[in-house]
Amino acid sequence: MTPARGFPAAEFAARIDPIQSRMAEAGISALLLTTEPEVRYVTGFLTRFWESPTRPWFVVVPETGKPIAVVPEIGAHLMRQTWVDDIRTWVSPDYSDDGVSLLADVLAAVTPVGGTIGQPSGMETHLRMPLHDWTALRDRLGDRKFGDDAGILRACRMVKSEAEITKIRWTCGIADAAFARMNDLAGAGVPLADVFRGFQAALLEEGADWVPYVAGAAAPGGYGDVISPATDAALGEGDVLMLDTGAVWDGYFCDFDRNFSIGPPTAEVADAHARLVDATQAGFEAARPGATPAELYAAMDYVLTGGGGPVKGRLGHGLGMQLTEPPSLIPADHTPLAPGVVLTLEPVIDLSGGRIMVHEENIVVTETGARWLSSPTGHDILEVAP
Amino acid sequence: MTPARGFPAAEFAARIDPIQSRMAEAGISALLLTTEPEVRYVTGFLTRFWESPTRPWFVVVPETGKPIAVVPEIGAHLMRQTWVDDIRTWVSPDYSDDGVSLLADVLAAVTPVGGTIGQPSGMETHLRMPLHDWTALRDRLGDRKFGDDAGILRACRMVKSEAEITKIRWTCGIADAAFARMNDLAGAGVPLADVFRGFQAALLEEGADWVPYVAGAAAPGGYGDVISPATDAALGEGDVLMLDTGAVWDGYFCDFDRNFSIGPPTAEVADAHARLVDATQAGFEAARPGATPAELYAAMDYVLTGGGGPVKGRLGHGLGMQLTEPPSLIPADHTPLAPGVVLTLEPVIDLSGGRIMVHEENIVVTETGARWLSSPTGHDILEVAP
Repeated sequence: MTPARGFPAAEFAARIDPIQSRMAEAGISALLLTTEPEVRYVTGFLTRFWESPTRPWFVVVPETGKPIAVVPEIGAHLMRQTWVDDIRTWVSPDYSDDGVSLLADVLAAVTPVGGTIGQPSGMETHLRMPLHDWTALRDRLGDRKFGDDAGILRACRMVKSEAEITKIRWTCGIADAAFARMNDLAGAGVPLADVFRGFQAALLEEGADWVPYVAGAAAPGGYGDVISPATDAALGEGDVLMLDTGAVWDGYFCDFDRNFSIGPPTAEVADAHARLVDATQAGFEAARPGATPAELYAAMDYVLTGGGGPVKGRLGHGLGMQLTEPPSLIPADHTPLAPGVVLTLEPVIDLSGGRIMVHEENIVVTETGARWLSSPTGHDILEVAP
Repeated sequence: MTPARGFPAAEFAARIDPIQSRMAEAGISALLLTTEPEVRYVTGFLTRFWESPTRPWFVVVPETGKPIAVVPEIGAHLMRQTWVDDIRTWVSPDYSDDGVSLLADVLAAVTPVGGTIGQPSGMETHLRMPLHDWTALRDRLGDRKFGDDAGILRACRMVKSEAEITKIRWTCGIADAAFARMNDLAGAGVPLADVFRGFQAALLEEGADWVPYVAGAAAPGGYGDVISPATDAALGEGDVLMLDTGAVWDGYFCDFDRNFSIGPPTAEVADAHARLVDATQAGFEAARPGATPAELYAAMDYVLTGGGGPVKGRLGHGLGMQLTEPPSLIPADHTPLAPGVVLTLEPVIDLSGGRIMVHEENIVVTETGARWLSSPTGHDILEVAP
């Protein structure tokens, strides 16, 4: 049954409480959030309008009480439908003052003189406002300190609630169903761009709200990279076709791929696929509370290289409101996993001639181990009739 | 006929030359670019992988010569297919140094001591790298100055080449064709979320590469906002359905909407639609080289309010590699328009009961006036059988 859209207000209260506890511990008077997932995490404000870079959007999390939204007037109607009560607006774009003085007033009201305003500043974060306005804001609040958020957003967002996990699993199911239709979408002679289009339409037909991400590749016996857009080149027999999708339902992503052989695979491709699946299984088995991304990486790397590694790059990552989130499955990431952490397992294998193959599944860490969110594929590479 | 994908190297040379001339005038030794459109504008690097926030991507434009790419290894294969020759890579994410020292070395090599590194810093720009890394970069380059880009990217990107205009027009044609299928997609009893999905699938079937943006609304006699995602509420007879899309073909957006009446419109809705079309026409007629966005705004505003305005908010904007770009059709924008500037005309009208209607078309400024890129809709609101 389709899950309910949105979240009850209790979900947001349960997000804000630990954020504010950690703020108190870190000596942060207010958090200033500017990016889509940060704003949505604490407010529930869900819109595709972030695609427009024109307007900044601000949310301030004070020491106590609900977040305060400082947003362009065009978003007021939608923000009023969230649990947020205090919504300040201005008509943006305003070339003389695009929300800066309004935001400064709010920050000054919730931050004592000498107090610290925290902003997410570490890896995978951005500043989604013009540098000029950021400078002007700090100048106006010269008697307050600006610092980082002590990693609070990263830590809190990494552990998903049951309601969040339900949405991610639902999105994964949509992609499962779309991948199952590949025999109708791909085949020798079909341009790769048409496969991409047909796959995106299939995701929508299976229930995705939108499809922010599709990448992939197709080439004989493996491919060269995994981030390129489609070309109009036609698939040929013997090609390995990989499609990787980040579809969205109610604001939550899946992120996994499938490899398909157009006609029977070569022995190298068949072996590589089986090993990728074994590596994924090894990562799955290593996932449990207290394990670290580095340990999952090591378990997968051992299967991929037989101890001859390490593989370059990361072998998976967090997943949720964004296509990729912390943590990273790399040797340097020692974050202890907790129940509710959603991960992708994404092994890569080198083939002859500089080609690669990549496989990916989605899991959630549970009290006792892990659970699949995507329906894991078998050892045999999926075959599409040529 | 489908336009060619990509651009010849000459297109990028023609972009870099005026950028570097303006850099010399402004006393900027190097530009540091971090966002998707900035990087793509000077390199041609086109990928949906920006959806992942994890990795930073850097391009440095020196005083002379081609841009230098400083990018994660995962993007090297794709970057090597562009006109860029100098590509530095690191394995990202690297928790100890995520490209910062590599970038600092490149900037130091092209910027003399005391020289200025410019970054886009004004309205509609962002800093797409972690604040901590940005601070570390400036610390490492303490003997160079960091400043803004003197508006160079904004000015250069605003005037589109013939090849860019061809791509935007092609994307507009795709959306024209998808809108023409609304009688098959919408009707009384159809949930709005299904209309959104069907419309996105139609855009893909008509040739869109992907659909980064769809927003809209449906309500009796007008709607409350224009940025909300779809709900599962069913359309009813008398609803005004608005769909607004930013579809993409080869990296270039369209951005226009259509209003549909489910069954016959009320007199208020019919009149409002006709007035919106008249306002769009007034904006079109005001568009010519030397005219300003403020003048286009005034021409449209007069039709909308009969002189009783001004309308709050903007009545259109630039369009190209992003859904919205400078300039803004607001009273404060006095940028002289030049041939090649692509604009949306987007009048809004207030109706009774706090409802609104919004209409939007896409145009390009020519030597003698303007040309439609979307196929302009008529005075009569489009009607969908209930």
